[in-house]
Amino acid sequence: MTNWTLAARAAKMNPSAIREILKLTDKPGIISLAGGLPSPKTFPLQEFTAACNTVMARDGAAALQYATSEGYAPLRQAVADMLPWTVDPDQVLITTGSQQALDLIGKVFLDKDSRMLVETPTYLGALQAFAPQEPIAVSVASDDDGILVEDFAAKAGTGADKARLAYVLPNFQNPTGRTMTEARRAALVAKATELGIPLIEDNPYGELWFGDAPPAPLTARNPDGCIYMGSFSKVLAPGLRLGFLVAPKAIYPKLLQAKQAADLHTPGFNQRVVAEVIRDGFLDRHVPTIRALYQQQRDTMLAALEHEMAGLDVAWTRPAGGMFLWVRLPEGVNAQALLAEAVERNVAFVPGAPFYAEHPDTRTLRLSYVTASSDEIRTAIAALATAIRAHQTKG
Amino acid sequence: MTNWTLAARAAKMNPSAIREILKLTDKPGIISLAGGLPSPKTFPLQEFTAACNTVMARDGAAALQYATSEGYAPLRQAVADMLPWTVDPDQVLITTGSQQALDLIGKVFLDKDSRMLVETPTYLGALQAFAPQEPIAVSVASDDDGILVEDFAAKAGTGADKARLAYVLPNFQNPTGRTMTEARRAALVAKATELGIPLIEDNPYGELWFGDAPPAPLTARNPDGCIYMGSFSKVLAPGLRLGFLVAPKAIYPKLLQAKQAADLHTPGFNQRVVAEVIRDGFLDRHVPTIRALYQQQRDTMLAALEHEMAGLDVAWTRPAGGMFLWVRLPEGVNAQALLAEAVERNVAFVPGAPFYAEHPDTRTLRLSYVTASSDEIRTAIAALATAIRAHQTKG
Repeated sequence: MTNWTLAARAAKMNPSAIREILKLTDKPGIISLAGGLPSPKTFPLQEFTAACNTVMARDGAAALQYATSEGYAPLRQAVADMLPWTVDPDQVLITTGSQQALDLIGKVFLDKDSRMLVETPTYLGALQAFAPQEPIAVSVASDDDGILVEDFAAKAGTGADKARLAYVLPNFQNPTGRTMTEARRAALVAKATELGIPLIEDNPYGELWFGDAPPAPLTARNPDGCIYMGSFSKVLAPGLRLGFLVAPKAIYPKLLQAKQAADLHTPGFNQRVVAEVIRDGFLDRHVPTIRALYQQQRDTMLAALEHEMAGLDVAWTRPAGGMFLWVRLPEGVNAQALLAEAVERNVAFVPGAPFYAEHPDTRTLRLSYVTASSDEIRTAIAALATAIRAHQTKG
Repeated sequence: MTNWTLAARAAKMNPSAIREILKLTDKPGIISLAGGLPSPKTFPLQEFTAACNTVMARDGAAALQYATSEGYAPLRQAVADMLPWTVDPDQVLITTGSQQALDLIGKVFLDKDSRMLVETPTYLGALQAFAPQEPIAVSVASDDDGILVEDFAAKAGTGADKARLAYVLPNFQNPTGRTMTEARRAALVAKATELGIPLIEDNPYGELWFGDAPPAPLTARNPDGCIYMGSFSKVLAPGLRLGFLVAPKAIYPKLLQAKQAADLHTPGFNQRVVAEVIRDGFLDRHVPTIRALYQQQRDTMLAALEHEMAGLDVAWTRPAGGMFLWVRLPEGVNAQALLAEAVERNVAFVPGAPFYAEHPDTRTLRLSYVTASSDEIRTAIAALATAIRAHQTKG
């Protein structure tokens, strides 16, 4: 195969930085704050087992047959009913995880060298999902409240150079944990509408709020100007690979066609099982237990950071929900270099650089507070502080 | 959204011809020979239910957590063990149906305007899966034994114009039901190796043989020159969306990266359930029952065609396995036009034109003999003959 010619994009394909780190850190005794793995304690095993049996007994062969690309009708209806604005189930497309929704959106919107706007930093998996279309990802300046609308307008471009889409994750963002304020949302939607730039709103963590629910989604403010993405990965379990998108009716058929071509349909058995688990309001009872657990673990991590990082010039975010917080290291400390020293001390994190579409800040890193237990979090943050001190001494 | 600019490819995206036909034919009382739906009688419902319970009891949360993009190790091992040449499990990538394998291969091999070679006719779903990369699909002349190797060489191209891949389905092809002979396989692999053109071998139906097993796969003859695709859809159940590819080690990482970007991983629960169902040789006992059922239904359809089409200038293939046969209508009868008359008479089929990358033969159509029962097949073929006669009278 040495004489095979690959697509130009293949030369740019590299293993996911996060997945490579997960391999690096897969050693006995390590405490990983790296992955974005929901706590397995939150998976509703009994309900899931019962639903498997119900679906097989009730639906039998229908659950195992080919199915429509749009998704299982009762699940599409349940998704429409869950959302806080008027959604027709015909606008709901069930996807194989919300990662697939990104792939489909990339196929429908992006040509080679199309401009697309992303936050600074942004979700690494979105950059990877869009990469096969070889767009130019433009990093819009962002602060603790999210994307800066003035810079959004400045970077929107015009004519053939106009951005094809803007990808944003307003609630408890991956990787920073930050949340867009009400005012910022209103301003962004107004500007995107004015400029005619579709907002791709990714909301996998929106239900995982700790104090108050976050402001209404961007899409609720202008459903015809946005594509909304959601997921059952963080409120039920990620191994099911069940996500969804909600699109304006005019664009839905193109996304559906991309879905047909990508994998025909999302496993029908999984769709039926989840529809069975969530009927009768299960999520209303279940999600508060996830919120309570993650809030406690966030509190543990924040307290440990306060304690262990004292005297070090380290800064971090204080997320109001979700799974991650974002750390900025002292001047001169490179997160990638620090990782080796941290792994030696049995703690792992994800360096922040891969989350930047342009101009990475190499002093940043992402910590998850949902996979490890509170005890492990305390141990890990102490080890991380030790690693930083050791690194500074060396430096 | 009227002012949104879409990717150039989006203008070429159309609903799947087959899926649109399935909607058209979704009326009460119709007998559909159109879809490629495996007989639900063949789905191992008890074994699947038992495996769901075993997996949940044994693996619990691990079955519902995020998993590796490569796939569940015991399933990769089982796939490697199933195949009739030496396969390292590290070469096996589990995909969300074999349709996804096509999407990944397209991303890794095809640029806009890359040439790719396909059979005449070819699997429509492959054309759709490759379409987002905007290749030029070149139709290689084919006869009852498969692709013509001389024409393959003539159309291979050179330099920048050299074909990036050749997509072939050697066993009981969708749509024609034909099988490549031993001699043709040997000649094709030799020529592809000489020219350095990767063979993409799709083998979803290979186990469904009626008399003798088909000749060895192309990939078994030159594993470094081929990518092999297989599926559990036709030997277990399609609603699980479980397929796989086997790739040379040098190209595997690129396909893996495309997989990560596309949907992170195939549902881990489904992978564990299938690994559980197939351990201890279940397929060795189960697949013969599918073969027997489909052989009987093929015989029924062939006998009905002999009887009902007598005196009409209609020709058809006699598949030695698989799910489909291919019909050529009398001169002047267009299959698309005939479909309306057939649906009036409560029988549906798929017109052949969408299966051609170039120069469609509009007198062709595809019939499935696996979804409808033998009684229904007899009724449907009689109705089809009536429709042809009515159409000819009109014409």
